[in-house]
Amino acid sequence: MTKVRTPLILINFKTYTEATGKNAIKLAKIIENVSLETETCIGLAPQFVDIAPIARTMSVPVFAQHVDPIAPGSFTGHVLPESLKAAGAVGTLINHSERRLKLAQIDTVIKRSREVDLTSVVCTNNQAVSAAVATLGPDMIAVEPPELIGTGISVSKAKPEVVTETVELVKQINPDVVILCGAGITRADDVAAALRLGTEGVLVASGVVKAKDPYKVLLEFAERLTY
Amino acid sequence: MTKVRTPLILINFKTYTEATGKNAIKLAKIIENVSLETETCIGLAPQFVDIAPIARTMSVPVFAQHVDPIAPGSFTGHVLPESLKAAGAVGTLINHSERRLKLAQIDTVIKRSREVDLTSVVCTNNQAVSAAVATLGPDMIAVEPPELIGTGISVSKAKPEVVTETVELVKQINPDVVILCGAGITRADDVAAALRLGTEGVLVASGVVKAKDPYKVLLEFAERLTY
Amino acid sequence: MTKVRTPLILINFKTYTEATGKNAIKLAKIIENVSLETETCIGLAPQFVDIAPIARTMSVPVFAQHVDPIAPGSFTGHVLPESLKAAGAVGTLINHSERRLKLAQIDTVIKRSREVDLTSVVCTNNQAVSAAVATLGPDMIAVEPPELIGTGISVSKAKPEVVTETVELVKQINPDVVILCGAGITRADDVAAALRLGTEGVLVASGVVKAKDPYKVLLEFAERLTY
Amino acid sequence: MTKVRTPLILINFKTYTEATGKNAIKLAKIIENVSLETETCIGLAPQFVDIAPIARTMSVPVFAQHVDPIAPGSFTGHVLPESLKAAGAVGTLINHSERRLKLAQIDTVIKRSREVDLTSVVCTNNQAVSAAVATLGPDMIAVEPPELIGTGISVSKAKPEVVTETVELVKQINPDVVILCGAGITRADDVAAALRLGTEGVLVASGVVKAKDPYKVLLEFAERLTY
Repeated sequence: MTKVRTPLILINFKTYTEATGKNAIKLAKIIENVSLETETCIGLAPQFVDIAPIARTMSVPVFAQHVDPIAPGSFTGHVLPESLKAAGAVGTLINHSERRLKLAQIDTVIKRSREVDLTSVVCTNNQAVSAAVATLGPDMIAVEPPELIGTGISVSKAKPEVVTETVELVKQINPDVVILCGAGITRADDVAAALRLGTEGVLVASGVVKAKDPYKVLLEFAERLTY
Repeated sequence: MTKVRTPLILINFKTYTEATGKNAIKLAKIIENVSLETETCIGLAPQFVDIAPIARTMSVPVFAQHVDPIAPGSFTGHVLPESLKAAGAVGTLINHSERRLKLAQIDTVIKRSREVDLTSVVCTNNQAVSAAVATLGPDMIAVEPPELIGTGISVSKAKPEVVTETVELVKQINPDVVILCGAGITRADDVAAALRLGTEGVLVASGVVKAKDPYKVLLEFAERLTY
Repeated sequence: MTKVRTPLILINFKTYTEATGKNAIKLAKIIENVSLETETCIGLAPQFVDIAPIARTMSVPVFAQHVDPIAPGSFTGHVLPESLKAAGAVGTLINHSERRLKLAQIDTVIKRSREVDLTSVVCTNNQAVSAAVATLGPDMIAVEPPELIGTGISVSKAKPEVVTETVELVKQINPDVVILCGAGITRADDVAAALRLGTEGVLVASGVVKAKDPYKVLLEFAERLTY
Repeated sequence: MTKVRTPLILINFKTYTEATGKNAIKLAKIIENVSLETETCIGLAPQFVDIAPIARTMSVPVFAQHVDPIAPGSFTGHVLPESLKAAGAVGTLINHSERRLKLAQIDTVIKRSREVDLTSVVCTNNQAVSAAVATLGPDMIAVEPPELIGTGISVSKAKPEVVTETVELVKQINPDVVILCGAGITRADDVAAALRLGTEGVLVASGVVKAKDPYKVLLEFAERLTY
């Protein structure tokens, strides 16, 4: 299990063909290589079944894409925090725009993640919701205006005020929360801009996973992370 | 990947501590042993993250506990049929009482499972719903009155008419569908009764997973399967 | 409470501004007028809060847009079948594409509707799902390919085979079920075509509600119903 | 439409038989009488179909039990804020424990309620979640530990710290938010205790609706409100 540091690039594999099964392993290997070469922290969030094969063989921090607000018991088809930890995950996305949770569930799942020592990265859609989540004490918040996800129009350029106001509101409530931003991040400039706006990293999906040359794109991203 | 035969005992690991992480591996090993010793088909449905470690190292048919009605794409935190197949699963539970799906989703997920060659086992709660599912052409239907799940009062004794009427209705609509029954199955007699009522196997969870001696219980189950 | 006859035109008010509050009352009055003038059966499905004001003052059959699979009890914010009946509804849409239900819920809600004497109109998305619903014994099935809803491209023209195969499959399973079709119905020709394909009516929303002159459009629809 | 004042007793009718259809009208009349006699503010939240008949004939503030995070459009079976307003509601419960919402939906629905001038009463399950909701700027928060709902063991006695900490946390974030508490409130003492702990009222359901003599119980409640 590889520890998480900031600044952080976190790659969401979603359920893309380019990041499923053997492709997931290949992509994870590329991520590991860039991370080692640039001495940066690049995490990845593969599909559930790919967590163990990656986490047990590579020195990259592996996140789940979702975890359920449950304790051990009768929850067929759900994702137990303990199962992620045992598989080698270091953290988990929570409340991604494609997998929103109810408010009380977010509270529960942040607590449960802490109990089993998983880094909680709660996704939010705007400043107000980011502030609400901050009161619940997650490790990280990743603000992503859903209307920009997958568009190639980066949040750091199209809606910088969402990022800066999130940073301001969240830090006021809970200065320990690490803030990432995401949505539309496809170029190294977007990463640099995200850091300038006060975040400590980015959450990226198609910008890397569906790039013609993920290695090249990610290398450029990582180089902007280290300055 | 190990093929599925009938009669079949299918063990649902749920999110029990006794079947998570290292315990999942141990329990899977016991299941493999009983299966080999008795020359019966015993499948298991572990949590998502435990599918690959088990399927890649043991000669048991591995099922997922749930799969989402999706094709590759932007579905963070969801379970893609292709990901299960790549991890070594041979099939999947669908619509378990703890993870019910919408009707149109069941239709989609049966089709998607067939496309990637996963055996679909759709759970139902009564005769009428079993008949409805039969029209959608799944590989198997597992009828489980939810009020008996986890009670230790077996469906084959408490509600035999649910089983016999399901067999009758389903076979009339689609004679190729394999029928299992579940809920409250804890003793070898319950397994024998299930087969007598016309099913080709059972879906079991706590009866095996939480047994003091899962090996012993499962051996007794398997012996009744082969008569 | 006004009885339902076939052939039937059923107007779904959705949550359109043109069919909310005072506008709902006005539109219901237009529907009542056309119905009386043409001696046809035209039902309407307004929003929940508009059911009582319409049902208690006009001679039109009023449907709910949704009902929950519950009995009286602690279900804050849910829609109890008994409450609809008491408000004067004669029936209810179930499982509309914008409000899909789980399979076991559809089974329950059809039974509960029958218990309180509400006509159940279950919406489906294709032939296979229509057949599945037919086994559950609803009063009516309204097949609507979701991809055509709101497009103005009518199901009776773009996908006639969905309609004819639904009629065939459903009648084979349960000849008592009344079949409607919907999606994209905007012209009188679409209504005529729907009847020719074997249905006993149509489910329409924007085609009437958002028409410049709902009275005129509906009159044309109704005239095709009676030939 | 009758305005809301504090202190406030808010009666949730749920989907109880005792508060459906004609019974809803009778109970609303009792509430109106007690309110007029004691010159206190007693609101009620009937089922959707009963809102208009009550709001248009009685001088009591009527709330919905739920509203959906939507604007006018294609949302069959959903509850549009505008429809509640048009029916005479003055406010709405949001996120009741029996009808939880996703976090981003709560944010949207508070904003939408304000746009149409509905008083938003967001239900929460504990102190942390109350603080999270406070950042979103609702009009009121009703904290109700779900494990006490319907038990007859009142939150103000069994878990006073949940109430006092909610008051403290919420007031710190947003002093304008009115705080109610609920769960298990069945006696006049529970109402008095709730006010002593810093709330401005209570949310009650079975304690009044299922009382042998709702008039008598409510009169006792109201008398404690006014001292």
